[in-house]
Amino acid sequence: MLTLPFIVLTLLATAAVPSQASEKLSELSKDDSQWVMPAKNYASTRYSGLDQITTENVDELEVAWTYSTGLVAGHEAAPIVVGETMYVVTPWPNKLIALDITDGSKRWVYEPKPARAAQGVACCDVVNRGAAYAEGKIFFNTLDNHTVAVDAETGKEIWKTKLGEINRGETMTMAPLVVKDKVLVGNSGGEMGVRGWLTALDTTTGEIAWRAYSTGPDEDVLIGEGFDPFYAKDQGTDLGVETWPAGRWQTGGGTVWGWISYDPELDLIYHGTGNPGPWNHTQRPGDNKWTVSLFARDPDTGMAKWAYQIDAHDLFDYDGINESVLLDLEIDGKPRKVMVRPERNGHMYVMDRATGEVLSAEEYGFITVTKGINLDTGKPIEVEAKVPEVGKVTREICPAPPGAKDWQPSAWSEKTRLLYVPHQNLCMDMAIAETSYIAGTPFVGAEVEMYAGPGGQRGRFMAWDPETGEEVWNIKERFPVWSGTVVTAGNVVFYGTMDRWFKAVDASTGELLWKHRVGSGIIGQPVTYKGPDGRQYVAIFAGVGGWSGAVVSGQLDPSVPFGALGFVGAMQDLPQFTEPGGTLYVFALP
Amino acid sequence: MLTLPFIVLTLLATAAVPSQASEKLSELSKDDSQWVMPAKNYASTRYSGLDQITTENVDELEVAWTYSTGLVAGHEAAPIVVGETMYVVTPWPNKLIALDITDGSKRWVYEPKPARAAQGVACCDVVNRGAAYAEGKIFFNTLDNHTVAVDAETGKEIWKTKLGEINRGETMTMAPLVVKDKVLVGNSGGEMGVRGWLTALDTTTGEIAWRAYSTGPDEDVLIGEGFDPFYAKDQGTDLGVETWPAGRWQTGGGTVWGWISYDPELDLIYHGTGNPGPWNHTQRPGDNKWTVSLFARDPDTGMAKWAYQIDAHDLFDYDGINESVLLDLEIDGKPRKVMVRPERNGHMYVMDRATGEVLSAEEYGFITVTKGINLDTGKPIEVEAKVPEVGKVTREICPAPPGAKDWQPSAWSEKTRLLYVPHQNLCMDMAIAETSYIAGTPFVGAEVEMYAGPGGQRGRFMAWDPETGEEVWNIKERFPVWSGTVVTAGNVVFYGTMDRWFKAVDASTGELLWKHRVGSGIIGQPVTYKGPDGRQYVAIFAGVGGWSGAVVSGQLDPSVPFGALGFVGAMQDLPQFTEPGGTLYVFALP
Ligand SMILES: O=C(O)c1cc(C(=O)O)c2c(n1)C(=O)C(=O)c1cc(C(=O)O)[nH]c1-2
Ligand SMILES: O=C(O)c1cc(C(=O)O)c2c(n1)C(=O)C(=O)c1cc(C(=O)O)[nH]c1-2
Repeated sequence: MLTLPFIVLTLLATAAVPSQASEKLSELSKDDSQWVMPAKNYASTRYSGLDQITTENVDELEVAWTYSTGLVAGHEAAPIVVGETMYVVTPWPNKLIALDITDGSKRWVYEPKPARAAQGVACCDVVNRGAAYAEGKIFFNTLDNHTVAVDAETGKEIWKTKLGEINRGETMTMAPLVVKDKVLVGNSGGEMGVRGWLTALDTTTGEIAWRAYSTGPDEDVLIGEGFDPFYAKDQGTDLGVETWPAGRWQTGGGTVWGWISYDPELDLIYHGTGNPGPWNHTQRPGDNKWTVSLFARDPDTGMAKWAYQIDAHDLFDYDGINESVLLDLEIDGKPRKVMVRPERNGHMYVMDRATGEVLSAEEYGFITVTKGINLDTGKPIEVEAKVPEVGKVTREICPAPPGAKDWQPSAWSEKTRLLYVPHQNLCMDMAIAETSYIAGTPFVGAEVEMYAGPGGQRGRFMAWDPETGEEVWNIKERFPVWSGTVVTAGNVVFYGTMDRWFKAVDASTGELLWKHRVGSGIIGQPVTYKGPDGRQYVAIFAGVGGWSGAVVSGQLDPSVPFGALGFVGAMQDLPQFTEPGGTLYVFALP
Repeated sequence: MLTLPFIVLTLLATAAVPSQASEKLSELSKDDSQWVMPAKNYASTRYSGLDQITTENVDELEVAWTYSTGLVAGHEAAPIVVGETMYVVTPWPNKLIALDITDGSKRWVYEPKPARAAQGVACCDVVNRGAAYAEGKIFFNTLDNHTVAVDAETGKEIWKTKLGEINRGETMTMAPLVVKDKVLVGNSGGEMGVRGWLTALDTTTGEIAWRAYSTGPDEDVLIGEGFDPFYAKDQGTDLGVETWPAGRWQTGGGTVWGWISYDPELDLIYHGTGNPGPWNHTQRPGDNKWTVSLFARDPDTGMAKWAYQIDAHDLFDYDGINESVLLDLEIDGKPRKVMVRPERNGHMYVMDRATGEVLSAEEYGFITVTKGINLDTGKPIEVEAKVPEVGKVTREICPAPPGAKDWQPSAWSEKTRLLYVPHQNLCMDMAIAETSYIAGTPFVGAEVEMYAGPGGQRGRFMAWDPETGEEVWNIKERFPVWSGTVVTAGNVVFYGTMDRWFKAVDASTGELLWKHRVGSGIIGQPVTYKGPDGRQYVAIFAGVGGWSGAVVSGQLDPSVPFGALGFVGAMQDLPQFTEPGGTLYVFALP
């Protein structure tokens, strides 16, 4: 029989001892008057306890102030709010703008002046998803592969660290996560044959603490002693080398351009990896580990606790970088510590976040390429007829490369216990062809034409119950719902559309309660906070673009459907609805 | 004694017979639910009889919808409203955008695709001041010197006429005025030594009906038999040649880039001309007619009825292109048909619009360069010490080149009988030097540094009583008030500031009633209209730029004060308040 002192000792020895910094961030993230990281909190729930704006009064919401960035690329960043200051990061040239949260006056702007050439190697518009706060500093990434720390008060640069090479096709678009004394950042460039990585920098000095590659030998992937994947398919040595044709892992993609979550108790961070390169899968026989995979890692060392490859040998650009929402759910009558992932491949994964076991993986989107996930093996059941072959056009591949959901993050309500998921309904025809790797140029080998999936509506916004594995309600939209979302204790969910509406719906029923016509299509992430004046505010960037909106922000010819890696075909009518142009909108009750 | 039939005959023979088109436009301009020309009506009062928004409820105003243009140059255009459609012209590339007036959805966009090179020869940002409506067509100018007629319903081009040459430094930025079957347009390029003109095109065919040059022989200036200037100084033959050193009139400026008014009863149009080139006045001894002059012309033939040179031999770039507000006032106890002009040189001219007589010319801005206007001669009384000399810096020249007021138009209230004048308070130091004319390049010969005038506030908004010749109230602003203004029967005046406020003040007292923080500084022109939903709307472009905002929209170095022809020196702090970015804001009561 264990004595009490022993249990305590065990906990101290093996479990999390969150550092002061993380504890402070955890605390800060509970203060609903602020919004200190894009995902709101380490669990990435994007839920706010504010309840001044309710289902009853939300239709009185009005514009409190706006701020124009003067930039026309897609505006994806979540504003963050610390104290009485809001921080927004623009698309390239990645200005960091500090604004007064109540009257929108400009405090300062920090301009990192990233290389112009970076614009030429970004796959999907020159976007940025936001900044992170810790210890009086704002951290963010520049398109030309620098992570920067800026004094939150003065706007002065504290450090700036170069992490990648645009000449190799690398860029950075993701929002960092700060865990303890480290800021975690990853690269982009899966369509240019870069080698993906996640890197931790020291928050104080900007020095690189560790880097975990997504491909290559275990040493590089930071797989070592404690590595304990749940499924047999993910077990073995140097799989990041062995599952590739000789040397191909070096240009194999697996970038880390999406979201990271953190569980302070388990002391594990969670992140996914992007697609393998090239898209033409015949050039890379094998599982192509660790692309389209999930990792649980020790934030101090980067060492992997477990990994799970979502799709081995990806055929369709189904990056595994979507958000992991960390929840305590009742699954089959038992309380479980899970992570819920609305996966790009169209399945809603509910996983044990301690072990990497898949508890369920229901379909939430229209899928033709698989017949479900085998929970015993952890593998999707592939539909042979949909495997692309060279010299052939494979039709009705669903979902299309952006998946049933792309990077645009979901929100979880503590009140309704539902997950709110902005996503899309797209299929494609695909032809693949031999391509060769030339550093810093596209490494794709596929021609794709996308179009609306069944029903013809390209966008969907749904409420999903991860405990029952069922959709509770959904709303259809003309265009992909490419914005993030936020849900509040007032039982209101906010999201934006590419045809210029910012909408509030009832979290329980999905009923549309209010909509406001903004200046440009929305692909930003809404946040909410409370001002020193006691009012609840809701903030969102308008400014269409991103991969889905590239036809507008990149001024592409709408009549060439193969543009933007095939996305133009599905968005030919978008220019009829919106021009580009970044403006931050902040709403409040009168 | 005259018999009645004789009088009638005389009227028919000599006075106005407004064509159907102008009558219809006159009628349309009285319908306050629409706003069919930038100046609202031929008298250019910019007054609306709408009174739903009042001094009592204006503080409840909220954003109904916004529209982003995705462009970062200065947005100066007045939206026009015809039926249920709003038409806005953007800065270069001069898109014409048609929007639903109640929900802001996009109807269509017409893109004239003006030459890129036009941007390089525009003096003061690549602005456009708006479109004009008549007979189912929208007319506007492109920066590369085309006037275009577009079907108001479909957005299809009806005709497009080339009027000038960017290679010679010509551009077009002004809003046309339609009078009867003619659309009246003028050129820009006074700082490039172009030869100014006003041109009439046939509204149906786009063919040039007449062109009146501002310099050169009477034949070119359209001075002939009926020409009857009031003052001796303006009488004589071929003064547009004789008042110049040999041949210099050909590169002498006098562009017509501002406002035109029309009196249907007198059947006269009124327009001014710009500064002479180069700024270095020692290179052009003489009066330099007809630069900085006013013309009353027959709209059918272009022939001048009278002319009045405001400033002979201009020294300071005091273009005479500001708005002429046509009013029936009581002057010295007698009803007079006047035009009121808040002149760039700082004087408020009240003139008999039938004869060109100056009835009064009170100072409304701070002036060091003249000691009033001699009403007998019609000439300003010059201060010798302020006449610039080569090799010397002349200091404290007030007003600076943008004048006490630039192009930003005033509004007149029928109710208060006050004129509302957005303007600025700037002085300068000036050094002049020899320059030579090279076609399509700056022809200035002056280095200028501008700074705030007395009191330090660079902007002013005032109410002026033209009957008493006195200011009634004024508001000081940090930056030049570079926006237009509108006044309503609700007794509310609206204007915008370069530091991102859209303001409503009490027309009687100037009391600030409401302000709204917009996304970028305002240099646009507000208008108001009524939607089919019965609500009164107020619309205004935000999007800083223009000459005053070039430091932001042109991304000039704020530490180089001589930038933008010396305006940067007075606007070094503007980048701390705003980024550029064009967004149309439309407000209404809840
Ligand atoms: O593989 C990569 O490195 C990578 C990078 C990015 C990016 O950084 O924006 C996107 C994608 N892939 C991608 O597959 C994708 O669907 C996508 C959408 C967007 C966007 O911002 O709208 N970026 C990206
Ligand atoms: O002489 C000319 O031809 C000319 C043209 C323009 C123009 O077309 O914008 C301006 C001026 N001059 C000018 O003197 C001036 O103050 C000015 C201000 C602005 C503006 O849009 O803010 N344009 C112009």
